[in-house]
Amino acid sequence: MSKPTIPQGTRDFGATELKKRYYLINTIKQVFECYGYTPLETPTMENLSTLTGKYGDEGEKLLYRVLNSGDFLSKTTSENFTDYKKLTPKIAEKGLRYDLTVPFARYVVMHQHELIFPYKRYQIQPVWRADRPQKGRYREFYQCDADVVGTTSLLNEAELTQMYDSVFAQLGLKTLIKINNRKILQAIAHYANAEDSLVSMTIAIDKLDKIGRDGVAKELTQQGFSDQQIEDIFGCIFYADTSNDAANKVQNLGHIELLQQKFADRNIEVGLRGIAEMKTVLHYLESYAFTNILEFDATLARGLGYYTGTIWEVKADEGTLKSSIGGGGRYDDLTSIFGLKNMSGVGISFGLDRIYDILEETNKWQLANQSHVRLIFINFGGDAELTAFQYVAELRQKGIAVELYPEATKMDKQMKYANARQIPLVGFVGEEELKNQQIKVKNMQTGEQQSVSLTDLLGLLTQV
Amino acid sequence: MSKPTIPQGTRDFGATELKKRYYLINTIKQVFECYGYTPLETPTMENLSTLTGKYGDEGEKLLYRVLNSGDFLSKTTSENFTDYKKLTPKIAEKGLRYDLTVPFARYVVMHQHELIFPYKRYQIQPVWRADRPQKGRYREFYQCDADVVGTTSLLNEAELTQMYDSVFAQLGLKTLIKINNRKILQAIAHYANAEDSLVSMTIAIDKLDKIGRDGVAKELTQQGFSDQQIEDIFGCIFYADTSNDAANKVQNLGHIELLQQKFADRNIEVGLRGIAEMKTVLHYLESYAFTNILEFDATLARGLGYYTGTIWEVKADEGTLKSSIGGGGRYDDLTSIFGLKNMSGVGISFGLDRIYDILEETNKWQLANQSHVRLIFINFGGDAELTAFQYVAELRQKGIAVELYPEATKMDKQMKYANARQIPLVGFVGEEELKNQQIKVKNMQTGEQQSVSLTDLLGLLTQV
Repeated sequence: MSKPTIPQGTRDFGATELKKRYYLINTIKQVFECYGYTPLETPTMENLSTLTGKYGDEGEKLLYRVLNSGDFLSKTTSENFTDYKKLTPKIAEKGLRYDLTVPFARYVVMHQHELIFPYKRYQIQPVWRADRPQKGRYREFYQCDADVVGTTSLLNEAELTQMYDSVFAQLGLKTLIKINNRKILQAIAHYANAEDSLVSMTIAIDKLDKIGRDGVAKELTQQGFSDQQIEDIFGCIFYADTSNDAANKVQNLGHIELLQQKFADRNIEVGLRGIAEMKTVLHYLESYAFTNILEFDATLARGLGYYTGTIWEVKADEGTLKSSIGGGGRYDDLTSIFGLKNMSGVGISFGLDRIYDILEETNKWQLANQSHVRLIFINFGGDAELTAFQYVAELRQKGIAVELYPEATKMDKQMKYANARQIPLVGFVGEEELKNQQIKVKNMQTGEQQSVSLTDLLGLLTQV
Repeated sequence: MSKPTIPQGTRDFGATELKKRYYLINTIKQVFECYGYTPLETPTMENLSTLTGKYGDEGEKLLYRVLNSGDFLSKTTSENFTDYKKLTPKIAEKGLRYDLTVPFARYVVMHQHELIFPYKRYQIQPVWRADRPQKGRYREFYQCDADVVGTTSLLNEAELTQMYDSVFAQLGLKTLIKINNRKILQAIAHYANAEDSLVSMTIAIDKLDKIGRDGVAKELTQQGFSDQQIEDIFGCIFYADTSNDAANKVQNLGHIELLQQKFADRNIEVGLRGIAEMKTVLHYLESYAFTNILEFDATLARGLGYYTGTIWEVKADEGTLKSSIGGGGRYDDLTSIFGLKNMSGVGISFGLDRIYDILEETNKWQLANQSHVRLIFINFGGDAELTAFQYVAELRQKGIAVELYPEATKMDKQMKYANARQIPLVGFVGEEELKNQQIKVKNMQTGEQQSVSLTDLLGLLTQV
């Protein structure tokens, strides 16, 4: 018999890993709930008619398709077999969830008459992509999104910024929350007389982290930007604060003033709107005590997405993994792909796998690392076993997680199990303890031992 | 544009439903953890080599298969296209999880050298079956299992029985927990001189609920059982307690004594072992105060499964849905399908969807039904909005879920939103409150209003 395996790019999660993952997910969920966001779960399989045409040619290739059940060949003719692309729609009508945004849009359209708007939803579910597996990239992985739709108020942007801050504050991870506005990028293209080249400008700027300032200049030149245009763009996106106001410096407020000046000089209306939006968001946040750093960054572009206003990106400020661990933005039009127009919204997402890896590297699991089981009783068999079994039942009825080793095997084997499970206390009910109605408790870390009554043990366990 | 839909037999879960589902799942999880069971999550997709040959011909038909990515026709020849059954393995190498038992067995075999035995795991994940959808039956649904492997101790059976009791006690649902032992059924066949017809006897008895005592007799006759054999079987499985011991009567302990007598009379060793096992389990549980009813039931058969010892089935004792909401048993051999022998284990499962439906019908959601958001501030715009925004931020930093309506629209619209979201308190910060640094709080249920400071409000919200 061949050894069983799991598909490439997928993972089993055992107890140790799940304890940490649940802690991470619950921390984020708690913040979402605290801000009034409510959960949504959509099916693993969606109709392919819902999924296709939404993710571009590259995305389409990565969709997992589910074979129709029964005789899936009944709808095919022999011509279909010459080309797998022609055959696919005949034999597969369903696909696996590829992201959380399209199912969310579909849900909003299907339930538009029952939903209460503004509709604040969060969704934490796995998605599947037939990507080439590599370190840190999986074919099954979780996405974690919070979005509010049906409101254009910038209060939402202020709250979502706080949500980022609050999650990472609770996780004890220092991050840099970068914020920008797509209207500002649009205005910068305008400022450099390159309105029609907004996309190639954005693509080039987006690579700044990887290729540096000179690399961006080279790419812009290759894309046909003149030296003057590049100078104009760089004059807008780069800024060195020489003031002494530490607070302003952190958030780059001087840069915002500079851009406002530039856009006013050339009367670029969209830019002034972008600046006004940014200032409103920051005004809401003025008296909020950030644990993380919020920074205006005019070079933040967030790819080619459908964003139209505020955009965010979060990076860890400790550990060696400098890649993005969160991002989001405002979009004017989420649901028109399904026929419902003018549904503006704004949302953020958390990169769970990457955050997990950083918490692992920087050893930030203090809060997650407690063993659920507080104490295990050694099994001595006979009457002692029965008494221990009754103690265990009583403690559990108080909600305390305890165990009794299920077999009266060698003490050595039982102690090894307690150790391997990292259970902090071991309880002994031997002959003597049975007589005195006592329990001998050993602290596995300090080696200390004491004999206590069941009532005292209860007190001990609710403290630990 | 056509209206979007979701695949037949699948469901979207919105906020109201998920609040209840999370409450149900968390109640069960807490009990699992309290008894030292630890979580496992396996991938949605498994290799078809793992899944096929495990679920019988009927099960095999219901497996969802995932089309290979890229040019899936590259490995096929034209002969393959004549029969979909021949084509399937060429174009699909992965399938969706069909149950939690096979992935669990695979996991145990793959990780046998790292796992700590006895290994107690619970798993709560969706599974997929291409079944004909009908009321209460879905193509995507959750299973919820707890199993311990690597131990033959009957202490585990006693604990699993308590776990059933504890979960339903916490949910406030009265149930009947039926318990039996496969060895007793085997002995009954032996007693009736029908060892070779154990399977057809079990199938007939399993239908008792549906076809009644006469129906079972008829079916046994059709299967070739003689009148004497049927009399012997019925003499074993039916029992009317005429004693006055209420406690014994509830658990049917008299029936166990009767069977022990019968098996002793005819010297049926397997039956005496089954009775001894049953008595040991009940002995462990003697001093445990059940909230639900535990009942020995010799007619309980649990289908044809791989069970070899104790078996359970749980039915609701209130509401109109009388179908099974849980079941499980002891198996001698979980992992030999993957080449690892002698891995005995025992486990139980909970029927989440059915339990949900019964809690819904009997209105048992008291504990789940609290709105997460305790208070919503009406948005009056300007300075009042900014002040409310700061209050909200402070309350959230204390972990209290509150909201500020994101737009300064008509009061009417905002109140409607508060009502629809079932938020118990509404806060007003108008001109006057702004002056006095007060917050007017309205209780949406009683209509009462009072003006309080932020500190007082904090006290109020931690009480509610």
